[in-house]
Parts: sequence; C-alpha cells; structure tokens
Amino acid sequence: MYFIKYLLKNQFIFNKNRKIVKNIIGDVMNHEIDLSKYSIRTDLAIDLLDNSFEKNVIDYDGILVSSIYLDDEKSSLFSKKKGNYITIGFDDVTDSFNQKKVMSVFCDHVRKLLSDIGIGQSDFCLVVGLGNFNSTPDSLGPGSVDKLVVTNHLYNLGDLDDGFRRVCSINPGVTGTTGIETCDIIKGIVDKINPDFLIVIDALASSSLERVNKTIQITDTGIHPGSGIGNTRKEISVETIGKPVIAIGVPTTVDAVTIVSDTINFMEKHFSYAKNNIDNPINKLIVNGGINYLKKDVFVSKSDKKELLGLVGNLSDVEVRKLISEVLTPVGYNFMVTPKEIDFVISKLCDVIGNGLNMALHSNYKV
Amino acid sequence: MYFIKYLLKNQFIFNKNRKIVKNIIGDVMNHEIDLSKYSIRTDLAIDLLDNSFEKNVIDYDGILVSSIYLDDEKSSLFSKKKGNYITIGFDDVTDSFNQKKVMSVFCDHVRKLLSDIGIGQSDFCLVVGLGNFNSTPDSLGPGSVDKLVVTNHLYNLGDLDDGFRRVCSINPGVTGTTGIETCDIIKGIVDKINPDFLIVIDALASSSLERVNKTIQITDTGIHPGSGIGNTRKEISVETIGKPVIAIGVPTTVDAVTIVSDTINFMEKHFSYAKNNIDNPINKLIVNGGINYLKKDVFVSKSDKKELLGLVGNLSDVEVRKLISEVLTPVGYNFMVTPKEIDFVISKLCDVIGNGLNMALHSNYKV
Amino acid sequence: MYFIKYLLKNQFIFNKNRKIVKNIIGDVMNHEIDLSKYSIRTDLAIDLLDNSFEKNVIDYDGILVSSIYLDDEKSSLFSKKKGNYITIGFDDVTDSFNQKKVMSVFCDHVRKLLSDIGIGQSDFCLVVGLGNFNSTPDSLGPGSVDKLVVTNHLYNLGDLDDGFRRVCSINPGVTGTTGIETCDIIKGIVDKINPDFLIVIDALASSSLERVNKTIQITDTGIHPGSGIGNTRKEISVETIGKPVIAIGVPTTVDAVTIVSDTINFMEKHFSYAKNNIDNPINKLIVNGGINYLKKDVFVSKSDKKELLGLVGNLSDVEVRKLISEVLTPVGYNFMVTPKEIDFVISKLCDVIGNGLNMALHSNYKV
Amino acid sequence: MYFIKYLLKNQFIFNKNRKIVKNIIGDVMNHEIDLSKYSIRTDLAIDLLDNSFEKNVIDYDGILVSSIYLDDEKSSLFSKKKGNYITIGFDDVTDSFNQKKVMSVFCDHVRKLLSDIGIGQSDFCLVVGLGNFNSTPDSLGPGSVDKLVVTNHLYNLGDLDDGFRRVCSINPGVTGTTGIETCDIIKGIVDKINPDFLIVIDALASSSLERVNKTIQITDTGIHPGSGIGNTRKEISVETIGKPVIAIGVPTTVDAVTIVSDTINFMEKHFSYAKNNIDNPINKLIVNGGINYLKKDVFVSKSDKKELLGLVGNLSDVEVRKLISEVLTPVGYNFMVTPKEIDFVISKLCDVIGNGLNMALHSNYKV
Repeated sequence: MYFIKYLLKNQFIFNKNRKIVKNIIGDVMNHEIDLSKYSIRTDLAIDLLDNSFEKNVIDYDGILVSSIYLDDEKSSLFSKKKGNYITIGFDDVTDSFNQKKVMSVFCDHVRKLLSDIGIGQSDFCLVVGLGNFNSTPDSLGPGSVDKLVVTNHLYNLGDLDDGFRRVCSINPGVTGTTGIETCDIIKGIVDKINPDFLIVIDALASSSLERVNKTIQITDTGIHPGSGIGNTRKEISVETIGKPVIAIGVPTTVDAVTIVSDTINFMEKHFSYAKNNIDNPINKLIVNGGINYLKKDVFVSKSDKKELLGLVGNLSDVEVRKLISEVLTPVGYNFMVTPKEIDFVISKLCDVIGNGLNMALHSNYKV
Repeated sequence: MYFIKYLLKNQFIFNKNRKIVKNIIGDVMNHEIDLSKYSIRTDLAIDLLDNSFEKNVIDYDGILVSSIYLDDEKSSLFSKKKGNYITIGFDDVTDSFNQKKVMSVFCDHVRKLLSDIGIGQSDFCLVVGLGNFNSTPDSLGPGSVDKLVVTNHLYNLGDLDDGFRRVCSINPGVTGTTGIETCDIIKGIVDKINPDFLIVIDALASSSLERVNKTIQITDTGIHPGSGIGNTRKEISVETIGKPVIAIGVPTTVDAVTIVSDTINFMEKHFSYAKNNIDNPINKLIVNGGINYLKKDVFVSKSDKKELLGLVGNLSDVEVRKLISEVLTPVGYNFMVTPKEIDFVISKLCDVIGNGLNMALHSNYKV
Repeated sequence: MYFIKYLLKNQFIFNKNRKIVKNIIGDVMNHEIDLSKYSIRTDLAIDLLDNSFEKNVIDYDGILVSSIYLDDEKSSLFSKKKGNYITIGFDDVTDSFNQKKVMSVFCDHVRKLLSDIGIGQSDFCLVVGLGNFNSTPDSLGPGSVDKLVVTNHLYNLGDLDDGFRRVCSINPGVTGTTGIETCDIIKGIVDKINPDFLIVIDALASSSLERVNKTIQITDTGIHPGSGIGNTRKEISVETIGKPVIAIGVPTTVDAVTIVSDTINFMEKHFSYAKNNIDNPINKLIVNGGINYLKKDVFVSKSDKKELLGLVGNLSDVEVRKLISEVLTPVGYNFMVTPKEIDFVISKLCDVIGNGLNMALHSNYKV
Repeated sequence: MYFIKYLLKNQFIFNKNRKIVKNIIGDVMNHEIDLSKYSIRTDLAIDLLDNSFEKNVIDYDGILVSSIYLDDEKSSLFSKKKGNYITIGFDDVTDSFNQKKVMSVFCDHVRKLLSDIGIGQSDFCLVVGLGNFNSTPDSLGPGSVDKLVVTNHLYNLGDLDDGFRRVCSINPGVTGTTGIETCDIIKGIVDKINPDFLIVIDALASSSLERVNKTIQITDTGIHPGSGIGNTRKEISVETIGKPVIAIGVPTTVDAVTIVSDTINFMEKHFSYAKNNIDNPINKLIVNGGINYLKKDVFVSKSDKKELLGLVGNLSDVEVRKLISEVLTPVGYNFMVTPKEIDFVISKLCDVIGNGLNMALHSNYKV
C-alpha cells in the first residue's frame, strides 16, 4: 500500500519510466505482504496492550485520557519503545463546543508531558509537520503546522513578550516527493539551528475502527513515520536526532483487515447478547432492532464463537487477522481506507492540534 | 452517513445552532438504518445482476466493457431504471499509458451511446458536475467539468469551427451547502438555455471492493444523486428535466458492510480452494502463501461454508449483508470509506472523463 | 483585459483551436480600447461623484461610511443607476480587532438597507457569489458564499428556530468557464425556487489606489458584472431578474491608468506642499523626508501644475486619464493589477462579508 | 511591503499580540523606505545595464535570449554579483504552442550553463523551491518543484536507468511562516545529504512593466531571496552553501514606482513621436489612435521632455524614480502588484520550469 502510494506521488516516474522502479517492486511487495501478514498495522500503543494491562484512564467530561508508561520490560513485551504514551479519546471534533473541550484537554497534557520530562518554559521548540499536504488523510501534520504562531525570526529581530517562547516549524514533505529521507532533512535543520526539543505531528494508521479520527496520541518516544503502514522510513527520535522528540498523532486511516476483524468481534458480541437476551430467530441471526451490545457487558463463550463462525470461531484474534490478511493481500484488496468525510474532519483536527500547541507552547497565547 | 456528511458541510449550523437540526435527525437516522439494512448501497447496475443474467462483455486490450439493456421486465426485477448501462472496468488509471487506453474506450462508448439514442453531431450539450468540490471523494463531477472545452459563449459571439459543437457546463454544488434541491437548479437552467441533452457526472457508491476507482458506468437513465448512500435527493432524468440525461459515474466510496461481506466470500473461496488443493493445517486455515484463488475457478459447497463459518455460513449473501449492517449500524461503524490514495486517483479520473468527453463531444478536439 | 482573462480560463480553446476565437478578438479588443480610453474603469459610485457633490459621511470609530441616494437627475448625470449606494471605507482587515469592527458596521448597514427597501425579517433570500473561484482576486464572491449558513433545505425538512430565515446560495461560476450568461443561470434558478430577494457578491475594479481592498460598496441597484473592466455581461438587477437585488462589492483590482493618474495628482500635492512649506532644492524636487501631504490641506494652483508637469499639467483629470490610456493601451501595458498580498487579504474579506451576512440575515446567529 | 506580507503570513502574531512586533516595525519600515527610495526594486540583472552595455542577444523563433557575463569590474559597476546571467524573454506562455518553444529554449540554456560551469551528466542535484505556496504570485518555486521527477530515493533502493541522474528537492517555505532563515534550512540539508550542486527557483520583482511574467533569468551567482522587495534574507550561493547554486527566476510582481516611471517614459516617446509624425492638437496631446511608438525608433529631446513634463521633464530616470518613491511611500501607496490573471499564468510558468528542468537534468526524460 505504501509502495502504491509513493508511486502515485511519483507519477512521472511511474508513468514515464516504469523500468526504473521495476527492479525494486519485488522486495517492497514481499515486505508488504510479510508485514501485513504478521503484524498489526498500527501506530497506537494503546491498541497493543491486552486487557490484562491495567491503564490509568481519566474521564474529562466525556473525553477519556489514558496515560501509560512502558518500562524496559513492558516495552519489549509489546515491542513498543520505552516511554510515556498519552491517549486522548473523543467522539466528535466537528461540533465546535466539543472541539474546544478536546483542544484544552490536549493542551493540558502536552504541557504536563513537557514539564514531566524536564523541558523549560522558555526552551526553544522546532515543530515538524510530517506527511503529504496533497494527500488529504496524510495532511494532518502540515495542516496543523500552518496554524502555529512561529516566533523565532521575531526573537532574532528583538525581544519577545513574556509568555511567548521561541518556536519555529518546518514541513519537510515526504520522501516520495522530495527523494530525501525525512529524518535527514530534520537532522540537518536541527544541527543548524539547534532547538532544545522537537514536536513532530503525523497522521497514523489505526488498528481499530473506533479510533479513526477520534484519538490523539502524545508520546515522548518519537515516531517511526509510516511504520503503521509497512513503510521503511527512518525513526525520528532522540536516538536519531539528538534532541527530545514529542510525537503527536491521530489515526486517520484503517486497513480492510482491521475493519473485517473488528466486525467479526462485533458479530460475536452481537450474537451472544442477542442469543441470551432477545427472542431471536436464531436460524437467521437477524434481530431486526438496533441494539448497542457494545454498551453492554457481554461475555462471548468459546462455544458461541464456534456455533456462530465455525472454524473461524476457533481462531484467536491474531489468527483471524492473519487469515483475513492472507485472504485479501494476494488479491490486492487489503486497502488502507479513510472515512468519506475526511476533508472536513482533518480541518477540524488541524485546528485542535495547531491551536492546542499554540496554547501549550505560549502561555500568553489566547485563541 | 449522508447526514453526518451534510452536517459537516453545514458546519455553522452544526456548531452554532444544533437545535435547528435536532428535530430532523431522528427521521434521517432511522431512514439511514432502514436503507442500509434492506438494500445494497450501490449505484452500479452491474452489481445488482446475478450471475444467471448473461452479460455482453468485450475485452479491449485489458479493459472490459459490459453493455446491458434493461427492458421493463428486467428493470423491475432488479429495481433499476429501464435503459442502457455500459460498464467499463480497468485496473489502474495512474499509469499514463493505461490512462490513455481507458480514455479512448470511454470516448468511443459515449459517442456510440449518443448516436444510439439519436443525439446529433451538432446538438447542444449541457454538462453538469455533481458533488462537492471540497470533499475529495465527492469531487469527481466538478473536477471533470473543469477540464471541459465550453463553446456556447463563443457560439453566441460568432460561428464555431467545424468539429466543435455547442457545449456549456455548470457545477451546481450540493444541497447541503446551497440549500437548494440540485435537481431544481439544473431544471431552472435548462428551462432558460434549452440544451438538446445533458451529461451529468457524479461519484458513486460501490457495492464491491474490486470496483472502487476502477469502473466507469455510462447510462441513459439519468441519475439519483446519493441514492447509493441513503440520500434523498430528487432524480435527475428525462422525467424530471425534460431532456435526455446521460449519467457518467465512478464508484469512489464503499461501505464497511461491503468490505466485510466481500471478504467473507473471499474467505470461503480461499478455504475451499486451499482445502482441496493445498496441504493445509486445516485447524489453522493459514496457507502461508499468497495464492490468488480469484483467478481460479473455485466451487464453494454448502458444507464448506458451514464448516468454515458456522451459522454465518448458512446465510445467503443478502442475509450476510443484513447481519453485518445490523451489527455495525447501531454502534456507528458502518462507515462509507475511500482509499487512502483518493487525491491522486481522483485527479487522474477527472482527466479521463473531462478529456474523454472533450473528444466525444468535439470531433475535431485533440488532446 | 477581460478577454485575455477569459481566454486564460478557456485554456483548451485558446491552445487547441485558436481559430475559433480569432474572428472575435478584433471586436472585443477595439471595444476594450474604446472603453479604457473614454471611461473610468470603476464599479464604485462614490468615485464618480465630484467634490461639489455633498456626501453624508459618518465615522464609526475610524470606519467611514458614506450613504448616497442618486435620484433620476443625479443618476443620469453620473451615468450610474438610480438608487442607494453605501460605501464603507476602512484601513486594514488583516488585524482581527479591526476586522470585527468592519464586520459589525457592514452588518448594520445591510440590515438597514434591507428594512429601508421593505424587505421583511423572514423573507426568503438567495445569495449569489459571482466571480471565478480559481482566480484569487476574483474569488471574493464564491469565498464569501462558502461561509454562509444556508437553511432553506432544513426549512423544507422541518421548522427553523426563531431568528433564522430561509437562506440559500449558489456560485454560478463565470461565463468564460460555464459558457452560459451568468444572468441566465441566476434567472433560471430564481424562476424555479422563487426567493423574495437576492444578494449578489462580486469583486470590483477600483478607480483609486486608496480603495483597493479597503472599501465595501452596498447598493440596491444590482450589479453589472465586469462592467468595471470592459466586460459585456448582462446586468443582474430587478429589471433582469424580477426580484430586488442587493449588490455587495469590494474593489480588489486597479488598472495602470489609475495608478499613474493618482500618482500624478499626489505629485502635484507633494510639490505644492513642499514648495510652500519646506526648504527644498526645487531643481531636484526631492524632499528627502517622508511627509504625508494627503493629511494636510493642500491647494494646488494651475501655475504649480504647469511648472511641475508642463503640458501634462494643463490637462484635466479626465484628460490625463485619456492620455495615459492612449499611451499604455496600444503597447499592451494597461494591466489590471492586484496587490501582492491578495491571497491573505481576500480570505479576511470573505470572513467579513460571509459572517457579516450571516449576522444580518439571521438575527439569532452568533459568530 | 515585505514586512506587511510577513505580518499577513503571521496572522496570529499580527492579530493577537501586536506588541511583539511593535518594537521592530520602526527599523523595518525605515529600511523599507530607504531601500525603495534609493534602489531600483529588481532582481533582474539585465534591467540594470544601461544601453551602452552591449548584450549578446539571439532570437530563437521569437524568443529572445541575452547572455551576459559580468566580470569583477562590471559586476561592481552594476553592483550585481560576478557571473553568468541568461535572460529569456517571451510573449505568452498561456498558448501551449508557444509554451513548448519556451520550455525547450529554457531547457537548452540550463544544460549549456551546467556544462559551461563544469557540472557533470551524473552529478547529484538538489532543487529548492523558494517562496510561499499560499501566496499565488510567490508560489513559482514550490509549484515548479512539485512537477519534478525526483529519483534520489530510488537511487538509494537500486540502480537508476541510464539517462536519469540523482535528483532530490525541498520546499523550505518562507521565514515568515517557518521562523527559520531559509538559507539555514538549505545549508543544513546540504551538509546532511551532500549534493554536487543546487538549483533554486524563486519569483522575482521586476523593474519594468514589459518583463512581468514574460522573462526567465538563469544565473550561476545564486540568489538573494526578496532582495528585490526590500527583504533582508541571507543570500543563497556558493559562498553561503558551499556548493554551486544555479538560480532560476521569473519576475511576477512590479511596484507602483516602476509602473509610473515606465509610463512617464512611454509618454515622452508617445509625445515626441506624435508631435513629429501626427497632426496633433498639441494643447490636448490626445492622438485618438492606437499607435505603437515602441515599435518605432523615437528620439526624445531634452526640450520635448521639458515641454511635456515641466520640472519632472528635467529629471533623470533615477531621479524620477526617487521622486515617485518619495511621493508614494509616505502615503502608503508604493504597492507591489501582480497582474489580475496571475493564477493562470503561474500554473503555466510552473509547467515550463518544472518540466524544462526534468528534460535538462534527465537526458532520457520525455514530456
């Protein structure tokens, strides 16, 4: 999928000189298949933690924030980097009232994380907008950066007022269109202007239907652009850049494997709930009524799964994903997709992140 | 889904005066649920025809064109309007070589349909681009119209050269942003300028994974904007407009129900094929090899379905769709989605349709 | 200029079939020359009134509003249509504080004009955005309309709250790209949906440097699209549409003739002021100090003009414009130009007009 | 002007915290005034050379190319950097036939310059698009870069075909929005990826009406972004970057001083020509006929100038510019402007430069 995407970005190459890329398609494609077969396509730490893992979740007037710290042991267990992962879940940012609430919760947690890791009120910040401005679901980074109050050039011309720190920003573009490893662009600029810390913003891949466009992840572990979609870009983190890197991401895309496997889970819950609670023509399964079984506490027995889904009902979640991936990938249908309304939602999310960062970075900034 | 979309378009309403719309949400939502529960979300006639229905399919160097005529009987049978349906299927329009082939096949079939229904070389044409230019997957219409050679204003200033007919165009916008029934805008203009026929272009909803962004439908039956996604707009056809209406559409979106039900069909084929052809750890189902079972001729027995999928294996395709819809809709996950690369693909599709129409309408036009 | 512009819009025609238009260039060009030679390129009534004409000017905290009524006699005298002309002059809409002030003054005067001409609180309004969305200085109309709260489709679904009237909108595009006379598009829609009145928004041509992007004109006389730039479109007014038409315009472009003739006037003031007030090396004229002679009350004598500018000093303002036009037009340099910052200014002006209209049309609307 | 522009880009700063910038407005503004008073606002070398300077001009089927080499002496004489300056003058790039001719002449001269300064067929190139993508007249750089065939990332994955060199690109944005000195961004990236040479593309300021959007300058002296418009950015050249820097520019803007002073020159030619060739009511000056005096060889005597323009007629060209600048600047009317059609023209110019560079850099590239 990544490869197709970057070919699309390189339309001239793709169209005018297919031979150039012919000799590398093989590797990438195999790599693609392996990846989608054996890993879950996600950038969200929270989706990797099984239920045994206890999370600290706080409800801010309907906005759920879970704060996780992965130590050495847990990080290797979940093969995620060691560090803090803050996950903000919300319903809808297209309602301006709700949007304001999300923005202020987001701002507070960015501030908190910055102070937790010892970044000072007046430290110099470089904000990086990852992703391709010309691809709507991938434009979260550049779109958010365009809303920032940058002050570094004014700082260089004269003093700034109290409550405004030195901030600068860059939209480095994507390797598919620049031909340069994005990490190298950032590292080069950092070496030249020497900021105290970085904030990188990127659109992520989701591993659950319910998080698409409805979650913001904040972490101090940096980011691995495109890692969620089988991309092989270099990581952007303190290890590669030499400065603390706060990564902010929103999952804007999801793959077909996830849509199908989530739906199969929902089917099982729906079936167990209906079976035990509703007078239901079991031979048809159709309840003919919109019940929200997710709001209920539903236990799904092994026998229910087996009855409903036969051999598929015997599989573990990971095995189900493997099966679906093996079914869809060779026939070319393991799409990465995004909701039809993405243009409208992205513009609201860019407001939340861009202005939320303005408030978090400049204590005297008023929306 | 439609309703959310149109609220998103009416962001001020949505944000500033939720009460305005509160009293109508109910109806639309129920309507939504009914619709998605009992019908297949599609605008493509071909997807409604079962395999018993024999189609006349011609292969133009890899581009498959099926031409169907629905008479009174068949049209009521498939609850599609009586008339001609031409479906052009292709692999990839991001390869400029392939793009040219698709464009010329498309042009030829538009020309043929026009002459078949008795429209003359110099008849006056109004082209209408339906959809919302600000929503990428819905921008096919306006994007194609922007590429047209319009000549009507020049005709009114002096004579046109041979090989150029009178053409004019309009992008009426969408009801969600204009507040006007799109059909009324078009009818008003038609009554005023009196064209001989109309061509309307719109993005459609697909009812199969394999058609998304890979099919062009041409029909002389007009169009029912948004009918594929539970929208209630007025039909645009000879009955409502009073002039022949050729509708050109490409499915750019697909709903989660379709993704899941298609995948379940693929699973069954994959299973039956693997079971009979591959030494396969049946208790795991995983073949560990990318075989393309769609390319094979695979028979799926009732017992295979039952073994693989239990009760779900007993359901007919329509029942499976009902079940999935009933599972996803009440929990709000029956998304309409579009592939991540939509921005790039749409721009190519607009080239194909815009310039293809220029060639079909102006015999002396050269790309 | 108009003609070049519309060729640019019709790039295919222009490039692929120059002969089509060859036979009409002559007329249009001559027409162009005549027009620019003998008339002042402007859509602003206020610029046509000589100083003898006394205007009623009110200062709203730095925002100057002049209200003029042209009766039969005066309207023929100034060859402008009979009716009300309200001109709002301001300094800068890129300062959000100032922007809010302009918006509320604009809103108040729209409300007042509506009630003055007997339009009721709940009358049904169609707002039309004239101009080409793809040409930045011409995108004021569509850009403003995109910010409107349209309610007509909700009205048709159920009752609206108090304080919201029926509003709908359309962006008809420009004749150069639609091939249809814009007036016919509007008339057709009006006949179909029957609004009580229209508001049309368009970018205008200015006849003075100081008004570019710094004036809003509101009039109940309708509009003659492009009349300011030698365009021959049909008028949009009660006479052609059959409904009251309020026209709202901002001059976003100015021609070279105006820039030069304004500068010559400034030179004369500068010279007279410097001569009488500053110890000035008269043989050089250079004062070497930034004095603002416009803020002063400067009398320019005939002899000063003659001394400074020789024969040119003998000419009347109209004669100077004729001369400059005659000098620039045949060599192709009588450009219509727009300030380099137009992209940023237009977006602010669209805010002012779009949200100002929301407040004026919906009494319960809050920004 | 630059300052206003960058305030507009920093809308939040400008609106929300005017005090931040208050303390630096003074300097910049004074600087502005000085600059516009004492220098000609231009980036085009050719406009600085008086007629005594003999140029080597070749006519390629209507496209005029002048090649200049400034040695130490001449470069200090004209205060332009030492090096090669190639100026391509054309009429119209909106005619696709003419556009192709310009593209191939441009390509040939880029190739020639590269080989003249010893850059090899397979040397590694970084192309930089200067300017602000969100400001139409300033978007030439990013718009051209978006059309490039970048290959460096493919080179790193496998071998490239013959006839394709390593090319990568970056759009660094403008200091007003990034807060970073653009030269530092480029230098940082260059130090990291070590290209053999750079090509930088930027929109320029013109010092003559006739060159706006009708000239491409190619030089090996690098570029001083915004130097033409009173901007104080750091130079981008071999001295600051450490690699050869080819600069490609098109003047897309012109200031009011230039429009007026050019017009005054035209007036004098028009007057002298008319006086000696046409029976002309001298007391009115109006010839009432569109004669193109520029095509004629017209001598303007001192006495003609004095008779026509009084004291102003006594001034040298530089003195006239000083006077106009002194007249317009303090009253805030020394605009930088761009033609009304800029959106359409820029898109064509980006085609010419982007695809012209593809042909010049990749010998096997076909449009």
